[in-house]
Amino acid sequence: MVKKAKKEEPVILITNDDGITAPGIRNLVEAVKGLGKIVVVAPDKPQSGMGHAITIGHPLRMTPVHFFEGIEAWQTNGTPVDCVKLAVDKVLHGKPTICLSGVNHGANHSINVIYSGTMSAAMEASIESIPSIGFSLLDYSIDADFTASRFYIHQIVSTFLKQKMDKHLLLNVNIPAVDKKLIKGVKLCRQAYAKYEEDFDERSDPHGKKYFWLTGEFVNFDKGKDTDVWALKNNYISVVPVQFDLTNYKLKQQLSKNKLFV
Amino acid sequence: MVKKAKKEEPVILITNDDGITAPGIRNLVEAVKGLGKIVVVAPDKPQSGMGHAITIGHPLRMTPVHFFEGIEAWQTNGTPVDCVKLAVDKVLHGKPTICLSGVNHGANHSINVIYSGTMSAAMEASIESIPSIGFSLLDYSIDADFTASRFYIHQIVSTFLKQKMDKHLLLNVNIPAVDKKLIKGVKLCRQAYAKYEEDFDERSDPHGKKYFWLTGEFVNFDKGKDTDVWALKNNYISVVPVQFDLTNYKLKQQLSKNKLFV
Repeated sequence: MVKKAKKEEPVILITNDDGITAPGIRNLVEAVKGLGKIVVVAPDKPQSGMGHAITIGHPLRMTPVHFFEGIEAWQTNGTPVDCVKLAVDKVLHGKPTICLSGVNHGANHSINVIYSGTMSAAMEASIESIPSIGFSLLDYSIDADFTASRFYIHQIVSTFLKQKMDKHLLLNVNIPAVDKKLIKGVKLCRQAYAKYEEDFDERSDPHGKKYFWLTGEFVNFDKGKDTDVWALKNNYISVVPVQFDLTNYKLKQQLSKNKLFV
Repeated sequence: MVKKAKKEEPVILITNDDGITAPGIRNLVEAVKGLGKIVVVAPDKPQSGMGHAITIGHPLRMTPVHFFEGIEAWQTNGTPVDCVKLAVDKVLHGKPTICLSGVNHGANHSINVIYSGTMSAAMEASIESIPSIGFSLLDYSIDADFTASRFYIHQIVSTFLKQKMDKHLLLNVNIPAVDKKLIKGVKLCRQAYAKYEEDFDERSDPHGKKYFWLTGEFVNFDKGKDTDVWALKNNYISVVPVQFDLTNYKLKQQLSKNKLFV
């Protein structure tokens, strides 16, 4: 399986949710070349919007592929989260130094962190005590320009690889879809309170039966200047530290006087 | 579509992730009968482990069903999160008073909150400013005994319906699989740091090709007596308030001195 990394050479696990053939993952590999031993384990097809889904109802397959010159790579029929689990257990037989997910084609800021397969893969790594970063470019196009992304991803990953990283380090990085020279820098942010106002597109099939397409308009309810949405609108790269402890301690405190509880 | 609720009668939206025919959702409906106008919108098949998945690659279908006597019910081909979105936008044409999800067949404590379709449906409601509670019974069996669940769910839901609820109220309720008289009460908890230690079951198909089944052993790393795992082990019903702001403010503070950031 994996050849032993050179002494002290970091092992960089790369996955994504747009599938192993997406330009985004190729650009992520390019961005971190030279920073360590890269291993790719990614889905064999697009998995956008899969959230933290795992595959329990059918078996998983994993096949070696030769998409990336000189780099060990595997495709699986699983979700992004499955890929991380398979990589650790069946490819690396241990933990990588860092797990990188993306580059996603499209934004994963604000509430999107919850729906995002890109971020779920990164979160899965973090749960397993592997420092982890998810990257997304605010451009859905297959022909998106990753020039600025490559430059800043290299900078961010090399900076963290030189530091002692928290074992649960988990960062959600979004990159504005603008020319590199317009980017003002990398900004540490909190998740904006924003959401999609759903509006299902209702249609009839040729047999007269109704069906619905999920669509929606993104609405930002958060006026803060410390949010990821604000940063991106102002041409900063946003970095939101993310956690997997979902306990709402403030609400817990408020509810503690409730007679319902012993 | 939905008949108007009686004046001030609460509207209770019910969904799940085990599918509309699961005993768990039937018991949830039974548990809250009489507390308001109930409307069910649930998946037409099991969706366990779907996390916060949404359906964007194919259209959604929704059909009325007559599974629950005297109660309006719809099944959809979507995920639990899709069901909440469809219910609000296409069935209720507005927000219910509360959204209940479950009763899940099997535990959703600790880290399972992230993988759980049951809790993702509840979280979706909370994002949409609908107070929401997810219920899970620690018994995977189709023949699970829901007697204690029905009693305590009725108590919990009626208590909250009498109070002014936070619009983002989101509770993860787990019920131990023991006799009702052994249950010591309802305990407010935090999410335990526990996870699955994966162990893929590797097999060969009749054509000699490898495939993997995801399996794993649950390991609790958290020694706290204020966690959901502790409460359940000690025959309490656990209630964890949950949030959808995943920002790790502690890590954000730690990283703020990093030279990477402007």
